[in-house]
Amino acid sequence: MTTPASAATAAPGVTTTPLPASRKVYVSPAAAPEIKVPFREIALSDAAESPLRVYDTSGPYTDPAVAIDVTAGLPRPREVWLAGRGGVETYDGRPVRPSDNGGNRQAPAFAAVRRPHRGDGSAPLTQLEAARAGLVTPEMIFVASRESLGSATSPITPEFVRQEVAAGRAIIPANINHAELEPVIIGRNFLVKVNANIGNSAVVSSVEEEVEKMVWAIRWGADTVMDLSTGRDIHATREWILRNSPVPIGTVPIYQALEKVGGVAEKLDWEVFKDTLIEQCEQGVDYFTIHAGVRLGYIHLTADRVTGIVSRGGSILAKWCLHHHKENFLYERFGDICDIMRRYDVSFSLGDGLRPGSIADANDAAQFAELETLGELTPVAWDKGCQVMIEGPGHVPMHKIKVNVERQMQVCHEAPFYTLGPLVTDIAPGYDHITSAIGAAMIGWFGTAMLCYVTPKEHLGLPDRDDVKQGMIAYKIAAHAADLAKAHPAAQARDDALSRARFDFRWEDQFNLSLDPDTATAFHDETMPREAHKSAHFCSMCGPKFCSMKISQDVRDAAALLNDREQGMAMMSDTFRKMGSEVYVDVADKETGMR
Amino acid sequence: MTTPASAATAAPGVTTTPLPASRKVYVSPAAAPEIKVPFREIALSDAAESPLRVYDTSGPYTDPAVAIDVTAGLPRPREVWLAGRGGVETYDGRPVRPSDNGGNRQAPAFAAVRRPHRGDGSAPLTQLEAARAGLVTPEMIFVASRESLGSATSPITPEFVRQEVAAGRAIIPANINHAELEPVIIGRNFLVKVNANIGNSAVVSSVEEEVEKMVWAIRWGADTVMDLSTGRDIHATREWILRNSPVPIGTVPIYQALEKVGGVAEKLDWEVFKDTLIEQCEQGVDYFTIHAGVRLGYIHLTADRVTGIVSRGGSILAKWCLHHHKENFLYERFGDICDIMRRYDVSFSLGDGLRPGSIADANDAAQFAELETLGELTPVAWDKGCQVMIEGPGHVPMHKIKVNVERQMQVCHEAPFYTLGPLVTDIAPGYDHITSAIGAAMIGWFGTAMLCYVTPKEHLGLPDRDDVKQGMIAYKIAAHAADLAKAHPAAQARDDALSRARFDFRWEDQFNLSLDPDTATAFHDETMPREAHKSAHFCSMCGPKFCSMKISQDVRDAAALLNDREQGMAMMSDTFRKMGSEVYVDVADKETGMR
Repeated sequence: MTTPASAATAAPGVTTTPLPASRKVYVSPAAAPEIKVPFREIALSDAAESPLRVYDTSGPYTDPAVAIDVTAGLPRPREVWLAGRGGVETYDGRPVRPSDNGGNRQAPAFAAVRRPHRGDGSAPLTQLEAARAGLVTPEMIFVASRESLGSATSPITPEFVRQEVAAGRAIIPANINHAELEPVIIGRNFLVKVNANIGNSAVVSSVEEEVEKMVWAIRWGADTVMDLSTGRDIHATREWILRNSPVPIGTVPIYQALEKVGGVAEKLDWEVFKDTLIEQCEQGVDYFTIHAGVRLGYIHLTADRVTGIVSRGGSILAKWCLHHHKENFLYERFGDICDIMRRYDVSFSLGDGLRPGSIADANDAAQFAELETLGELTPVAWDKGCQVMIEGPGHVPMHKIKVNVERQMQVCHEAPFYTLGPLVTDIAPGYDHITSAIGAAMIGWFGTAMLCYVTPKEHLGLPDRDDVKQGMIAYKIAAHAADLAKAHPAAQARDDALSRARFDFRWEDQFNLSLDPDTATAFHDETMPREAHKSAHFCSMCGPKFCSMKISQDVRDAAALLNDREQGMAMMSDTFRKMGSEVYVDVADKETGMR
Repeated sequence: MTTPASAATAAPGVTTTPLPASRKVYVSPAAAPEIKVPFREIALSDAAESPLRVYDTSGPYTDPAVAIDVTAGLPRPREVWLAGRGGVETYDGRPVRPSDNGGNRQAPAFAAVRRPHRGDGSAPLTQLEAARAGLVTPEMIFVASRESLGSATSPITPEFVRQEVAAGRAIIPANINHAELEPVIIGRNFLVKVNANIGNSAVVSSVEEEVEKMVWAIRWGADTVMDLSTGRDIHATREWILRNSPVPIGTVPIYQALEKVGGVAEKLDWEVFKDTLIEQCEQGVDYFTIHAGVRLGYIHLTADRVTGIVSRGGSILAKWCLHHHKENFLYERFGDICDIMRRYDVSFSLGDGLRPGSIADANDAAQFAELETLGELTPVAWDKGCQVMIEGPGHVPMHKIKVNVERQMQVCHEAPFYTLGPLVTDIAPGYDHITSAIGAAMIGWFGTAMLCYVTPKEHLGLPDRDDVKQGMIAYKIAAHAADLAKAHPAAQARDDALSRARFDFRWEDQFNLSLDPDTATAFHDETMPREAHKSAHFCSMCGPKFCSMKISQDVRDAAALLNDREQGMAMMSDTFRKMGSEVYVDVADKETGMR
């Protein structure tokens, strides 16, 4: 079932091959037959096993039926959805200026220029406004079907989604100018999501290369992508990414604003920030990190920290506040920021600029002071109609993780939490995808809605392609472990399917069901030649006297004697199959974990 | 401070180079000046920072002053300790037979043949017997100093160790025939320990190669090593490992017993098992996994599991029980097993042959039935004078982990818990060092005393050298995270030292303080040339207007205004230094985790 590596690679440098044994399927929800919700179906070799349907973040890139042309961008299904809504106007956007790209653009501009949309105030525009007005949007229908894996009988209905959004417990980051989007819901009563960060290269060698970072991250499961580019080509790169992104794109607008004032933090002001917000709103960015909680009065609280302020946004604003001896202008202008973001339905990601950068600084006064302010601003944004999530740490030892979630929920009125890890120790640079996956799994279980990934290069350098993948897989593990621990109804099906495959010697199925089939296959092939896939070979490894089939027969016979139930024999015929593989598992594992 | 790679490699194939910037130091406890407790001291480049002393599992291999000769074995300091104790006799041991090595030995025999020791019953022999008799053994003094990092004022005194051992809450696995041992304590009121599993190669190409597996594992932090060899050369390989091992060695004797009966499980009997126990006791094995809890009446409980019985020992005994329709002979003969193990002070690791092999099977009736039996056997072993720890799962979702520890503590009377992971999901073959490190960190925090590592090859194949290292680092992260969460007094010093180095731009110190200096250095060098280590360069990366020193000055001035305290200025001069590095951290992290 493996798709040849050569298939479906439409544009050089952008990965479009489907995952092994997988095909794209689309489900049209009963509530909106015109909507196509994408899933991945993994074919299994056992006729008794249905193909396993899984949540699919990879977008049209893994659908061989879609011709990918990065220069044209993805199809824009949301244009049609939007047309049905009312309350939206189309206007001449802000012209692109050389300073938007650092004055020295090298990347070509995206060819198609569209007039942007914005709300005209005549109807509910944001998902929050719609939800509060009792309206079920196409985006809500889409995410309900997506979270339900297309099941028509799931408790995750469009109405449930609407209620969660209306309560502020979940957000659907979906700028009306990001028509390429396959919507995603972020909230603790849904699957735990993962964000991957990308950034521009020092030299833009090709547009495909920049787009490929996003495509590669979503292939391995990124639910959203933050574009943290700085320097040159910011605007152009972002446009390429947005026009080719099926996932929500987040940014930190202060980074670009800082570029526009030549990197001099104290020159930042409301006008340049406002201009940047509008620029990015028109492009279609789905959520903005806004560090409005870095208040002047909190900065001294970082003074006796081991690692001070470690957030780039936080330090920019700390510098601004201190230079001017003024309150953070993002805090002062928060209402104006809301008014802009609401017109495009850009969601807030209220930034934690004072998050701890070390175990020693976890849960300190600076961190929790900022959180209080984020909690104060959350209902302000809600009253303006804006969707809100809250960013969280960082570096936190295990015993201090839970209180972060409890406090955030209480202080921020249950707005979704979006955390970076946290790393549960500082002593393993080179392995911080692991130190942080431990904290991420736990904080996800405790109620965090989205996890920002960390790569093995954290604290050391810029991640390459393999680092991005390593970070993504570690975080998909964390998110899935959290979904299991939260007893999400759909989560365990994949574990069970893989475990059945493992016990039945269906090696290809085991690989194809795994988070990273390529690595599982390669690791297996290192030790065993391909022909060894046949179970007969494993029996010869164990010796005929230790044959698993023999043990299974013994168990069946003996258990029938021991277990006097009526269904004994029926149960045991199942056992006969199941017991069959324990011997190979033992032999393969004898040097690893199994005793 | 990096030691040249060429230094101190005495024997080809056995790694003896000290870790970077590290030197071996020995502390002699006041209670026993003749004892030398080894530590590693990491030198730091800042004159204001003392060298950091850390727990060191690597043995004499990282001491350039010790000439390593694998054919002669390590020095045997415990011979002297033992001589002072009484109650020990030396006798002609059981002769080595061809069947001990599978009938077809290829590995050379270890040259030195020593007459083994055993207890003669005239005095307390095991650490448990000694502890209960109020005796503080050299081993207790050693581990107290080791856990205290040599501090004379630590609350972890020899008397505290004695009490914990006497209560059965901790064990010191230390066969009186393993005189090369640097003793280790395993208990929840001590540092969390990590075990690495190794096994023989299909073809023994050299003795060094077999010994190197152990040396490599302890270099990266293995506190104990289990030799899970099967097939040929078992006895000879184990002898080579024991004579060269400074850490406790564990085995699963049923593996060798099975070899002696030609791999036919049903041919196993008490005599061949007893013979194997005595053989391994005389060699110096420190703990035995004994699957005495796989009772005949429990086997049917595995019938409707997704993954049946996944323990090799468990399935061997299940097969035996079913074939003979008899109770497990290890259960029936448990008292006799105790009598043998007590004479050498071999500790029990009561095996969990019915542990779950998948998320679906976690915490099921079979698992907990076996645990009840392990709890029944624990005081039996204690009454016989034997030390006991209890093995645990396996595959367990996060929300079902804690109850494993609580139940084990209650049922097994607080005997130390020793778990394999647990893996918190089944869906990531190729990454099970990560899926299980998540569970391991949590279960360590909850009170598990030792974690059995899992490598990336788990479920897929045999681990190579790099897999062993990856597994070890993941588990050192888990164990250290647990120590932090348990607020072990010594744990956070390393995090703090590393975080200070990070914030001060002391790159080499950051690398040298990390769990894996080689990888941290290599990752950094991928992105930055060596010359870039100078902080001036980072400022040029950020631009002169975003210079960290400038921000620090701003913070100092402004915070002095904001903060009216007397010590404001003193505090701020510290801040001046600390705030200095946030800019580079930001720039390096912009594509990874930091927003």
